[in-house]
Amino acid sequence: MDRHDIEADLRARVASSAFHSWMGMELVGAEPGRVEISLEAADHHLNLQGLLHGGVIATLADTATGLAVRTMVPAGRRHVTVQLDVHYLRPGAPGRVTAVGTTVRVGTSIGYAEADVLDAKGRLLARATATVAVMADHG
Amino acid sequence: MDRHDIEADLRARVASSAFHSWMGMELVGAEPGRVEISLEAADHHLNLQGLLHGGVIATLADTATGLAVRTMVPAGRRHVTVQLDVHYLRPGAPGRVTAVGTTVRVGTSIGYAEADVLDAKGRLLARATATVAVMADHG
Amino acid sequence: MDRHDIEADLRARVASSAFHSWMGMELVGAEPGRVEISLEAADHHLNLQGLLHGGVIATLADTATGLAVRTMVPAGRRHVTVQLDVHYLRPGAPGRVTAVGTTVRVGTSIGYAEADVLDAKGRLLARATATVAVMADHG
Amino acid sequence: MDRHDIEADLRARVASSAFHSWMGMELVGAEPGRVEISLEAADHHLNLQGLLHGGVIATLADTATGLAVRTMVPAGRRHVTVQLDVHYLRPGAPGRVTAVGTTVRVGTSIGYAEADVLDAKGRLLARATATVAVMADHG
Repeated sequence: MDRHDIEADLRARVASSAFHSWMGMELVGAEPGRVEISLEAADHHLNLQGLLHGGVIATLADTATGLAVRTMVPAGRRHVTVQLDVHYLRPGAPGRVTAVGTTVRVGTSIGYAEADVLDAKGRLLARATATVAVMADHG
Repeated sequence: MDRHDIEADLRARVASSAFHSWMGMELVGAEPGRVEISLEAADHHLNLQGLLHGGVIATLADTATGLAVRTMVPAGRRHVTVQLDVHYLRPGAPGRVTAVGTTVRVGTSIGYAEADVLDAKGRLLARATATVAVMADHG
Repeated sequence: MDRHDIEADLRARVASSAFHSWMGMELVGAEPGRVEISLEAADHHLNLQGLLHGGVIATLADTATGLAVRTMVPAGRRHVTVQLDVHYLRPGAPGRVTAVGTTVRVGTSIGYAEADVLDAKGRLLARATATVAVMADHG
Repeated sequence: MDRHDIEADLRARVASSAFHSWMGMELVGAEPGRVEISLEAADHHLNLQGLLHGGVIATLADTATGLAVRTMVPAGRRHVTVQLDVHYLRPGAPGRVTAVGTTVRVGTSIGYAEADVLDAKGRLLARATATVAVMADHG
């Protein structure tokens, strides 16, 4: 797939996913090996201290790394995240939050990707790494 | 705090959190060093394959480990999760999902906790580990 | 392989490995899904504070988890560790250090194992988790 | 400390460490927030397949991230690595192996650093992340 097809494919996936719309995640852009998603952090994304909940950050990181690997997986194969490690670096506040996922290496059976989670001012809220299994798509 | 106070404290926190009610998380039980939470996985918790989204599992693991450390932190101090590592072991389906967080070690400035995420049949969907900073509660 | 064959296979591997003898690692025991190794921590295993170096603990954890998965991998297939996460919980001192690796789940292409690293008094120095790829052994 | 003092301090540490000389690790260079170390992989650093042992890679990553944080810690405070996550991306062969540790964020009590482990041709063998506690140096 070229860059346009990749972005159209991911945009269709995100649009048809009940989870993504419930979470408020939107696809910002995609190209081979790189995917950017974002959400507008509202009250229900915050913890009791009024800060962005760690689960929301982990969800953004999981989605951005998984979709980034997806852009590098050939037709007839699929990806499953097997491990996600998130390092929380700064508290996040209400407002736009963006996750940029990038692949570092995608082999025939294992992929490795990373994500930056950034606030509206571009400050790094978290860094994440993911191990993704790549396998034949039976069905 | 004794066990009854710990559970009452956490129950009040979970009830007053917009994030927790939006996510559908409930406190099942708590004692010193151990917290159990659960949610009923509905359509909006699922990915495009109809399986429990990795972000939901990470959110349960983050919450269970954080609250487990919370039960071991003395008054006047607070906890902040700095790192969360999730290993996804089996796909999850709609239905009740439970996370059991347990502390392995909580020192004066660093805590370490683990979580099991289980489906309604008690199958292990994920295992997670968390590093939690413990610090003076200024405000 | 039965338990006796597994232990004999691993004992032969450890004995023939230049790395293992240089590191001072010995196989204590093995059964399906569980491997125990140890080393006698000497001066050259210590950091400048006289404590067991984190690299030695990571090496024990890497070896114990990898060999534990090895006991569950059928003939004609091999394992490669793709990810290792180590949580350091207590400083270690000179003396016997033991790592116990256990498998939690070994599928056809991915395995997940954990390790406890213990000092001579049985205190938990570190907990580790590992993601292991399982693949056809070509050669 | 300026860059020259940082490098001299780390060089003295590495030279006086029995572990570092036994492991064969040398300091290549250091500046605030960045440390490069290397070793010449010999037979005793290899596993049974003749590839660089995962423990050696983890040791290089642990050392490079820890020393990188060390360059950012003020006098009177010390650092202790509490968590290390290593992603193995390619098998390593005998020859020069280099680890470059960089700090992403060092706060008053927690630091986060990353490392690239590279072979003699500059290929990325592993990526690692570390959580480091920073505390008062009593003694």
